[in-house]
Amino acid sequence: MFPLPQKESRASATCPGPDSTQELSRNNGGGLEEGCSRNPDQKGLKLYQVGDPTATFSCDSSCLSSRGKIVKWFWDSAEKGYRTYHENEYDEDKNPSGIINLGTSENKLCFDLLSWRLRQSDMLQVEPSLLQYGDWRGHLFLREEVAKFLSFYCKSPAPLKPENVVVLNGCASLFSALATVLCEVGEAFLIPTPYYGAITQHVFLYGSVRLVYVHLDSEVTGQDTRPFQLTVEKLEMALRGANSEGVKVKGLILINPQNPLGDIYSPGELQEYLEFAKRWGTPEGSASFLRCFKSPTVISVVSVTTGMVTLGQTNVPLPLPKECLGIVVQRHETQACSGPEPDSLSISSLVHPKAQGFHAAFSPPCAPRRLPDPQRTHVMWATSKDFGMSGLRFGTLYTENQDVATAVASLCRYHGLSGLLQSQMAQMLRDRDWINQVYLPENHARLKAAHAYVSEELRALGVPFLSRGAGFFIWVDLRKFLPKGTFEEEMQLWYRFLENKVLLSYGKAFQCREPGWFRIIFSDRAHRLRLGMQRVRQVLEGKSQVVEEPASLADPGAK
Amino acid sequence: MFPLPQKESRASATCPGPDSTQELSRNNGGGLEEGCSRNPDQKGLKLYQVGDPTATFSCDSSCLSSRGKIVKWFWDSAEKGYRTYHENEYDEDKNPSGIINLGTSENKLCFDLLSWRLRQSDMLQVEPSLLQYGDWRGHLFLREEVAKFLSFYCKSPAPLKPENVVVLNGCASLFSALATVLCEVGEAFLIPTPYYGAITQHVFLYGSVRLVYVHLDSEVTGQDTRPFQLTVEKLEMALRGANSEGVKVKGLILINPQNPLGDIYSPGELQEYLEFAKRWGTPEGSASFLRCFKSPTVISVVSVTTGMVTLGQTNVPLPLPKECLGIVVQRHETQACSGPEPDSLSISSLVHPKAQGFHAAFSPPCAPRRLPDPQRTHVMWATSKDFGMSGLRFGTLYTENQDVATAVASLCRYHGLSGLLQSQMAQMLRDRDWINQVYLPENHARLKAAHAYVSEELRALGVPFLSRGAGFFIWVDLRKFLPKGTFEEEMQLWYRFLENKVLLSYGKAFQCREPGWFRIIFSDRAHRLRLGMQRVRQVLEGKSQVVEEPASLADPGAK
Repeated sequence: MFPLPQKESRASATCPGPDSTQELSRNNGGGLEEGCSRNPDQKGLKLYQVGDPTATFSCDSSCLSSRGKIVKWFWDSAEKGYRTYHENEYDEDKNPSGIINLGTSENKLCFDLLSWRLRQSDMLQVEPSLLQYGDWRGHLFLREEVAKFLSFYCKSPAPLKPENVVVLNGCASLFSALATVLCEVGEAFLIPTPYYGAITQHVFLYGSVRLVYVHLDSEVTGQDTRPFQLTVEKLEMALRGANSEGVKVKGLILINPQNPLGDIYSPGELQEYLEFAKRWGTPEGSASFLRCFKSPTVISVVSVTTGMVTLGQTNVPLPLPKECLGIVVQRHETQACSGPEPDSLSISSLVHPKAQGFHAAFSPPCAPRRLPDPQRTHVMWATSKDFGMSGLRFGTLYTENQDVATAVASLCRYHGLSGLLQSQMAQMLRDRDWINQVYLPENHARLKAAHAYVSEELRALGVPFLSRGAGFFIWVDLRKFLPKGTFEEEMQLWYRFLENKVLLSYGKAFQCREPGWFRIIFSDRAHRLRLGMQRVRQVLEGKSQVVEEPASLADPGAK
Repeated sequence: MFPLPQKESRASATCPGPDSTQELSRNNGGGLEEGCSRNPDQKGLKLYQVGDPTATFSCDSSCLSSRGKIVKWFWDSAEKGYRTYHENEYDEDKNPSGIINLGTSENKLCFDLLSWRLRQSDMLQVEPSLLQYGDWRGHLFLREEVAKFLSFYCKSPAPLKPENVVVLNGCASLFSALATVLCEVGEAFLIPTPYYGAITQHVFLYGSVRLVYVHLDSEVTGQDTRPFQLTVEKLEMALRGANSEGVKVKGLILINPQNPLGDIYSPGELQEYLEFAKRWGTPEGSASFLRCFKSPTVISVVSVTTGMVTLGQTNVPLPLPKECLGIVVQRHETQACSGPEPDSLSISSLVHPKAQGFHAAFSPPCAPRRLPDPQRTHVMWATSKDFGMSGLRFGTLYTENQDVATAVASLCRYHGLSGLLQSQMAQMLRDRDWINQVYLPENHARLKAAHAYVSEELRALGVPFLSRGAGFFIWVDLRKFLPKGTFEEEMQLWYRFLENKVLLSYGKAFQCREPGWFRIIFSDRAHRLRLGMQRVRQVLEGKSQVVEEPASLADPGAK
């Protein structure tokens, strides 16, 4: 789950760094107030790149197949940087001078709530059918519950349908399955960078599918209204560039909220991207459209009825949409500071009072809009982030395309999850009282406090950062600490953090094109955050040393 | 999980059928007492075949990739025959005239025992670490428990090592992962037929690896001592044949007990196959060796220490073995009727008093023998059969080859299982009192009674069958009911069973070369077995009709 470190930097430094930026998010809205001036050299740079997952590959495991060696190399590479961490993990009692992990995107604030819920007696229902082979799409009782849950919390205009739901063991598996059934070997998906680097492996290890990076920069120029903004122009440029290199692009991956940016696409932006994909998804372009909502916060879901569109590959026109389709991506600005509302999960993530709200994209108060290309829009949702349970391996696909649903289901015999877990998840998802009255408000409050603490610390350090209030991450601009502005220096800084017993994630792992950006996870308990941020400060102030834990203070995530 | 039905028969009938055989297992030992005389035409037949999983493929799902269409087609094909069953499943109370399933290889006799165990309070331990990303190889506490469990029940001369264990969500996934990391696209594994047909998909859907069938026949000729006997001669012939067609064979899959034969390789046979694989695994042959023990009954496990051998592909000699290696495949004939012994899991399957015992293969009382090629011998074990919990999706790999273990672990992010389940499985595996005093003896007794009932019924029907006392299956010879001895007739007979509300598995789904063989699962509750066998009888006696359930009798599998 760690982003993949790479051995060599393969992109040159493109932004001057140190002196040109200050605090990026002073007004909490996440805008780059004092942007870095554009480096003239950068204009000549390609704004896209076809990823080569094996560019730095080397392996001598002689009993493995060539692809087996690559598979193993991904493990070894990812392990390399983090082995130090795993060998010396921080533990409050047993190893207080161990390494604090602010690098893995997990919500560690609500284990007490979750543990309590998972220990209730309804978790011990063991029907014979749970112990037998079941429907590989997931037991019907669970798919029904997922459909109800998403319909309710996303305020779907029409109930979502269990037959459009496929359940499997996490979104990593879903990426693997979708890449395989949508793409031929060597084809690609577009993805805006920086992005969660593990997706490289998810689409490549089994599927042999690549990613075409749509490079985004921190500077606000042209049509941009904020740092690292995705625009249709950039998507088109990357698509054309990939095509010119003979790389066939079959889809677009959108993550909401964006990881590592913590950014949320506005309704207007989403609409633009969807329309772009529809235009591009002609028989000539033959693009599939992969929208991924693997969010810690906003649940997004398509509420589709029937309808088919002209599909790419076969050039055979199919029946056009007959009914109005709705997609709900619900997050009202008014909920930002007003605390939890009983029927909205989205608030669980709303940690930042001035974060730009994620308004209804295609839903009331407007009439439901038509999803541009429902047959090629496939939505992922998992509990890893919304419920802080990445170890439970629970992901879902929602798609109206029954061919895609069936093909993914066929691969689910390799991504199946225990019947017992299916029963447990159904129990939890249907427990609206606990979700609304216990989990959501408490999770919200704890995330908010943790986010406030880390952002204050960063401000006190004079470190610019981006944080639009979603996700578990703050995207931190440490470019001024890299004298030459290279990825080598970025890696060196990352090692200095690690040596000073705090683990962060560095920008290169997200294919960020500007050296010096780091991702800090804030969804951890207060004493670990304090110790971690203290260690970060020491490095940045050139005073690295192993420190003891400070006096204990109130911990929003304490049991 | 159902074997894959195929649209067309692609092999000609090779055995005359009806008049040449009688009861195959009259003496319970499973020998073909009255073998079918060899058909002269058969001698010219190839004794091997390179499987083509897509030979009957057709699909028009236009939004899918070409491989996506194949993936979907596998689902559709498998579903086709069984849809009738799923739409009308037998239920004692709600649908007594529904279809009885004697086709799916599951043990339905012990749900009461398992449910009780899984409802105990130790199943509700929810540590935070279980909810977080864990080691993709499986949590260490579980791998330790698996190693201890297998060491104990297999009487390993030396303790098995947790670092050689990889845990994932079932053996289907393990086949997929191993095929991918051991083989290039288009390469193949040898497998003796008849075999569990789903393995075709497991190695092909993600891995694009094929199977080379080593065709076995019911007739006892030449070196054979029993029907469907695997010999080194046959392995070599198939290997040479595949090579002559340009198909590179990378390994051999052995399942113990064999599915659908219920057959167990003797220690001498295993030794021969292992030696064959080692000889063949030269740089020229570059064979990997895949031994699969996915058994309902015999747990088999390698107990390896250190040692490496010359590996195939690189032609680089590595250090030779330094220490003696042991493999334990333990099953003493003396345990056959003596009831459970506390330290032997193997008895759980010993349903047949005169079944040929599976003696220690490489273990005491002889000194531990050397596993011929430990670095290329990879062992699978799952709880689906031994514990009758296929719905829990729990499989393990044991291999001393750390490259293979690491590569499989790297793919485990797509085959991961819930932290909660990992905790539950560890609790169950360490509960020796329950396993030894409750589960094993009761499971044994129930399997034995169920097996006795079905074999008696078959004898009364005058139907020959093979059953060497392992597995959940009886391999039944219905060739005399096919006038022309074709696969079309086999399929028609299968449909007649289905129309008469009993689901069996037909031989073609196992790539059996002789039309007319069927697999009957006996590990079901008595009233379902009675009703199912009554319906089988009606078809064979030409009196098909829907019948009501007979008066209830004692049920060894009752709750």
